[in-house]
Parts: sequence; structure tokens; C-alpha cells
Amino acid sequence: MAEEIAWVGVDWGTSNLRAWGIGESGAVVASAESDQGMSKLSRDQFPEALGAALAQMPLPQGPLDVVICGMAGARQGWLEAPYLEAPTELGALGQGAVRPDMPDERFRVSILPGVCQRQGGENVMRGEETQLLGLASLHTEYTGLVCMPGTHSKWARLEGTRIEHFSTAMTGEMFALLKTQSVLRHSLNGPLDGPEQDEGFVAGARDGLDDPAALLGQLFTVRAASLLSDKAPDWCAGYLSGLLIGTEIAANRNEIGTDPVPLIGSDKLCALYMRVLHMAGASGRLVDSTEVVLAGLKAARASIA
Amino acid sequence: MAEEIAWVGVDWGTSNLRAWGIGESGAVVASAESDQGMSKLSRDQFPEALGAALAQMPLPQGPLDVVICGMAGARQGWLEAPYLEAPTELGALGQGAVRPDMPDERFRVSILPGVCQRQGGENVMRGEETQLLGLASLHTEYTGLVCMPGTHSKWARLEGTRIEHFSTAMTGEMFALLKTQSVLRHSLNGPLDGPEQDEGFVAGARDGLDDPAALLGQLFTVRAASLLSDKAPDWCAGYLSGLLIGTEIAANRNEIGTDPVPLIGSDKLCALYMRVLHMAGASGRLVDSTEVVLAGLKAARASIA
Repeated sequence: MAEEIAWVGVDWGTSNLRAWGIGESGAVVASAESDQGMSKLSRDQFPEALGAALAQMPLPQGPLDVVICGMAGARQGWLEAPYLEAPTELGALGQGAVRPDMPDERFRVSILPGVCQRQGGENVMRGEETQLLGLASLHTEYTGLVCMPGTHSKWARLEGTRIEHFSTAMTGEMFALLKTQSVLRHSLNGPLDGPEQDEGFVAGARDGLDDPAALLGQLFTVRAASLLSDKAPDWCAGYLSGLLIGTEIAANRNEIGTDPVPLIGSDKLCALYMRVLHMAGASGRLVDSTEVVLAGLKAARASIA
Repeated sequence: MAEEIAWVGVDWGTSNLRAWGIGESGAVVASAESDQGMSKLSRDQFPEALGAALAQMPLPQGPLDVVICGMAGARQGWLEAPYLEAPTELGALGQGAVRPDMPDERFRVSILPGVCQRQGGENVMRGEETQLLGLASLHTEYTGLVCMPGTHSKWARLEGTRIEHFSTAMTGEMFALLKTQSVLRHSLNGPLDGPEQDEGFVAGARDGLDDPAALLGQLFTVRAASLLSDKAPDWCAGYLSGLLIGTEIAANRNEIGTDPVPLIGSDKLCALYMRVLHMAGASGRLVDSTEVVLAGLKAARASIA
């Protein structure tokens, strides 16, 4: 017979929610997913959405801790969990948790704070701090940059469980906007995963790495290449992706040391970042994002008052 | 009695068309405008759209030269006028003109070519080359960069009437996309021309000038500033505009000499660029865009075979 659920960890993002039932041993006993992300819910719909996700798992009779990270704690979420301010010790993340009202009193719900930064470039994160705590818990020796590719990529400098500084690059959102809404869409109008995508990606990454200050000008190369050299949509898509990722990595290049940069994100995206890191004379290593968010929720739970 | 129209110059862009009736003396005798830009017309609708614009002016009885620059000569326009290839002499622009069929045989229509660039970054322009020729005709002594701010800003290096090199920065389009379609729209949701716009503009321009390679990361500052410092939409709009223009100017800074950079574009936009050029330790001077396109059409007409 399977282990009983001892507590539940939840990663509640903008567009969806993932929940894991964890046993006393720390093993994942059950899991649930839902498309009820923060952006789809008004404040009073959060308890029901959480209840529906929890109901997918075999719950014990007694009371149950539920520890949530991510956008549920944003101002427009369920209940605002005020930011910790970087530089800050993530080991104390749970001390900043807030307790929203939950009609079903079996569930003792805590929402973890995000992290903000006021000095050295205003910035905010919600959810990534828990993954960073998890990474630090699993790899206690690591000091250096961590890269979290995505719609809004995060680059954070960790020293053990301490977050020193971080930035956000709008790389993924920019790719989507340029691909679908800008003049470049005319050059990306067709199959994008064809054989020339790779050649385009390498050319774009090289241009971005070589001259990141020229991004606004290099983007239009996509259009010119399709008009002048008949570059196909797959080449253009590869170029645009490579150019943006190359520019993003170049902007962080000086802070990257000799250790491989931990990469937390989708496998596909992380593989692209790994490749461009290599072109930049650096290296990356894949980190399982589910593993680190679970480790982070677990570590945070230990410090909840 | 007014001078008679001797020939007609037309600037036919993506979204509209402007036509001027020119007398033998070179004076503008009449003018017309239309919203029948290239993007709204199928190939066979161009003759009628041109006829309608010409009909707004008092035309002479005899045959009439009509010289057109701009997107009417694009592949998706009326008749493709193949690009000249930079570096190239703009004095010979008229030699590349094409002659589309015009049902009304009174009008002898010529469409001027655009300019492309294959070496040193693929690029294309259509319309700006005629303004550049006009600028060179009016200021024969000028050698250096010319900046043409807009949806797709052009930066061209002129040596007299020769265009050496040019680039295109998607600055204006990026501003519009980020303002209306990206996550930053939440921070720009309100009156944008308020009293804090100016302070935001200066802050953004400074950040763009200081670290143009960090654009993808600096953009998110807009969101963070509204979340953490309650920056108002007008500040955020100013910051975004300043950041993009500062980044664009920084990318061209090394090619800007001690002469003021000629600025061709809308008065409002040129004033912003002038200001950021000044912040960058350079200077700009406003050029009347109608004056230069007319001078360019006139100079090009002289070389039409």
C-alpha cells in the first residue's frame, strides 16, 4: 500500500497550477494539475480552485498543511504575500508566508512570498525563489549565477541559500510578440521547425553574442534576410530565437564563472541556452525543475512559523 | 495666377500617399494626400488610387511626368523596382526607375528603386533613399550619419550623394508592441502624457545609453518600477520610450562624429532623439522631411532615362 500524504506542495503560476502530495518520507505520493492559473481567477475563486485540485488526490482524514509558491501570492492573486527584499536569505522563506482563509478547515494553507530587489535595478520574482531555495538545498556547495529560461527569464546570483542579485529578461515574450505581431511575422509565416532552423539559430546566436548592444537593429535582419536571400521561415525563426538568447546571455556573460550555469526551465529551451552558453565559451547543466520546486517547498515548509 | 504644374512627385508609403504638383520653377503649386497606402491596395488598384490623388490637383492639358518613391515599388506594391545595392551613388537613383502601366496615358509614371545592403548586415529601405538624396542635394557638404526616427528607424552613412552603409532599428514598432501587447501594458494602462513622463524618459534614456547590451533585462524594470515604486503610467511610458531610444542611439554612438546628426522624421519624435543625442554628448539638427523628399524626387527625376 502506498504511503499516505503528509502535506501538499503547490506551484501556482499565472497560467496553471501543479500540486504534489508528499509522504512523511519526502516522496511524492500523488500529484494533480489544473489550468486554473492566477490570471483566470478572481480573488474569491482561489479556495474552490485549490479544493478541486486537492480532491484529485487521496487525502488523509486529518488536517493537512498546504504550502503554495508562485503567483497566488501576487497582489492580483489570492492573498498578497509581501516580497522579501534581495539580497536575502532564502532559508527563511517560510517566515514570510501568509495564511489565506480556506473555507474547508482541514487545509492549513500557507502562501510563500516572492523576492523583490530595489537596489541595482528594480525587479520582482514569484515562484523562482522557491526553485532557487530548492537548488541551494540540493547543491549546498553552489555559488554563482543560475539561469531560468522562459517567457521572462530570470538570472540570479546565489551564494548558498542566499540570493544576492537578480534580473529578468523578457526574451520569451519578445520572441512570441515579434513572431506573431511585428513586421517580422511576414518572414515567419510557414513551418518553423524545418531543416534550416538550426543554421539560423547559430547565426542569430553568434550575432547576439558578438554585438548585444545592436539588438534593435539586428532584429530587422530577419526581414531583410527573407527579402534579399530568400531565407525560409524556419531559418528566420531560428535566427530570431538565437539572436534573442545570444543577446540575453551576452548581457550576463561577465558574471558567468567557470562552473557550469545551472539551467532551470523546459528541456527544449534549456538545451538552446546550453548551446549558446557553449558558443560563449561557458557551459550549462540541466536541473530538473520539478525536483527543485519540490525541494524548495520542502525547505520553506521547515521555516513556516 | 498660380504657376502651372510641370510634373508631380509622390511619396507612396505603406499607410498613405502624398503627392505634390511642382511648377517649372521648382515651387510646390498644389498638393494632395490619400490614405490609400501600399498595404491597402492590390496590384491592380494602384492606377486608380494614383488617378484619384492626381485629380485633387489642377492638372495641365498635356502629358505629365509622375515620379514616385516608396513602397509602391516593393514586391507587394504596384511594380517592383529592383533595389540599388549599397554602397551606391544616389545621384543615379532615377536610372533604376521602373515604368508601370497607367491606363490614363497623360501620366508618364516612374517608380524609383529602394536600396538594399548585402554586405555588413542585410538591410532594405524604400523611400528613405529619396530623402537622403534630397538631403545631400540641399547640403552638399555633409558627410556622416543621418538618423531617420520612426516605426523602423534608419541610420545611414552618407558621403555627399553616396550611401555607404545603413541599418534599421525596430524601435518604434517595439515601443508600440510592448505598450499594447506585452506584460508591460499593465504598467502603461492610463494617461501617458502626464507630468512624470519626462522624468521617466530621462531615466530610461540614461539606462539605455549606459548599458545598451542589457535591453532585454532593462525592459522589465518598467513593470518592477510600477509594482515596487508605484510609478505611474506616464513615468512608465516615458521610461520605455527613453530606454528604447537610448539603446538605439548607443548602438550608433561610435559612428557619430562632432557634426550635429541630421534628423528626418516627425517633429515630436525628432525632438526626443535630439535630447538623447545631447545626453550622449552629441547633437542633432532637425531637417524638414517634406523638403528633403521633394528635393530628392527632383534630383532623381533629373536622372530618369
